[in-house]
Amino acid sequence: MSKPLILVTNDDGIEAKGIKELIDTIVPLGDIIVFAPDGPRSGMSNAITVNTPLRFKKIEMCDNVLRFACNGTPTDCVKLALHSGVLHRKPDILLSGINHGSNAAINVIYSGTMGAAFEGCENSIPSIGFSLANYDGKADFNFFKPYIIKIVKEVLKHGLPRAVCLNVNAPIGEVKGLKITRQAWGYWTDEFEKRIDPNGHSYYWMSGYFKNEEPANHQTDEWALANGYVSIVPSIIDLTAHDFVDEMKTWNL
Amino acid sequence: MSKPLILVTNDDGIEAKGIKELIDTIVPLGDIIVFAPDGPRSGMSNAITVNTPLRFKKIEMCDNVLRFACNGTPTDCVKLALHSGVLHRKPDILLSGINHGSNAAINVIYSGTMGAAFEGCENSIPSIGFSLANYDGKADFNFFKPYIIKIVKEVLKHGLPRAVCLNVNAPIGEVKGLKITRQAWGYWTDEFEKRIDPNGHSYYWMSGYFKNEEPANHQTDEWALANGYVSIVPSIIDLTAHDFVDEMKTWNL
Repeated sequence: MSKPLILVTNDDGIEAKGIKELIDTIVPLGDIIVFAPDGPRSGMSNAITVNTPLRFKKIEMCDNVLRFACNGTPTDCVKLALHSGVLHRKPDILLSGINHGSNAAINVIYSGTMGAAFEGCENSIPSIGFSLANYDGKADFNFFKPYIIKIVKEVLKHGLPRAVCLNVNAPIGEVKGLKITRQAWGYWTDEFEKRIDPNGHSYYWMSGYFKNEEPANHQTDEWALANGYVSIVPSIIDLTAHDFVDEMKTWNL
Repeated sequence: MSKPLILVTNDDGIEAKGIKELIDTIVPLGDIIVFAPDGPRSGMSNAITVNTPLRFKKIEMCDNVLRFACNGTPTDCVKLALHSGVLHRKPDILLSGINHGSNAAINVIYSGTMGAAFEGCENSIPSIGFSLANYDGKADFNFFKPYIIKIVKEVLKHGLPRAVCLNVNAPIGEVKGLKITRQAWGYWTDEFEKRIDPNGHSYYWMSGYFKNEEPANHQTDEWALANGYVSIVPSIIDLTAHDFVDEMKTWNL
């Protein structure tokens, strides 16, 4: 029986520690092909490149893993990996990450890591985004690894429903266990730092922090991270607010 | 009673015909402030700018509408409009568009127009993205306008549930009516055109077309557009696949 074909990507770029640690973790689970951005693409969401040509090239590192680096977004990387002819067959699974930083709560919609997972999902490939709640480029991913193996094995076994992929986030440090949760509601605040350039003109850096608006005992993804658990949110790319359709049909439209 | 404050943005840039037509359409409905990208940002999804400073400046056009142009993404524009101090109060509604091109089906996740609407929604502002299924920069928006007015009035009257905004798409030409629909399932195919540059290196342009995978009689957004109706999909930024959570809890995790 042939080994599963695993497509790996991320948004921190092909040289980030997180993607290297992900590759090391999953080597025993299948044949790996990496197709990742040639540099950082944090916050790129599901962005696609429509007005600039895309390029990619093979990258050699000190192992036998086939790697391609691309000048596009994480979503471009998945599209090109699948549709440019570099793969001899459709991947059995797509893994994105490990992201340096949490993609819990609303961060899922800004995340390039999850953008890549959504693109795999849209192409009917079981897809998982992995993120560690630590922005440090030298973060320790070791506590996360046994959970990654367990989750990948279960997804290879069960598959995932149409339009659904997994948003997996790990807390920093020792892990108590794993929880299947839901996306927390909350918002970013103090989002900009205003500065004045040497010519006297204003400019703004994005910054701020996330404010969780959920009751303290609700088992959301933010709750899991705050309490030492790996969080899995099954996440769907059918954005239809099905529960609201009937109410809206009573409007005077 | 004060008039509603309407925040207007888009992803085709502040000089696009679509945003000008949107502004003309809604002038009778409230006080308008425009905060839009300084050029095209198609396909930018919910991307945010984290590694480059953001700037914006006031733009004068031949009317009394207050306009700001920004070097960021549509999502950045909404964040900056709300959090940089240019607004004297929170907007009553956010309108994004009118986009030159459909944002039906999976295009909702790549769309900068909808990225802006999602950001308004995340900030608890009733938000609507408007798109016309015509990429022509000189497209005729006239058939769409009475529907825009009707929809904006109803949203101002009823509000929208938490985490829900509207994805409104119009067909080209005469309109038969309006349908509240759901996001069609389908996929893009033939996504790249490969070319060789003068130095002999490959490069790829994103292209292709959308293949609708829904049964012909299912009343999705694609169905509405193909049959001459304006489509409204209420769209949610809680991406949790709630229906799958229980099944996933039976896995060996």
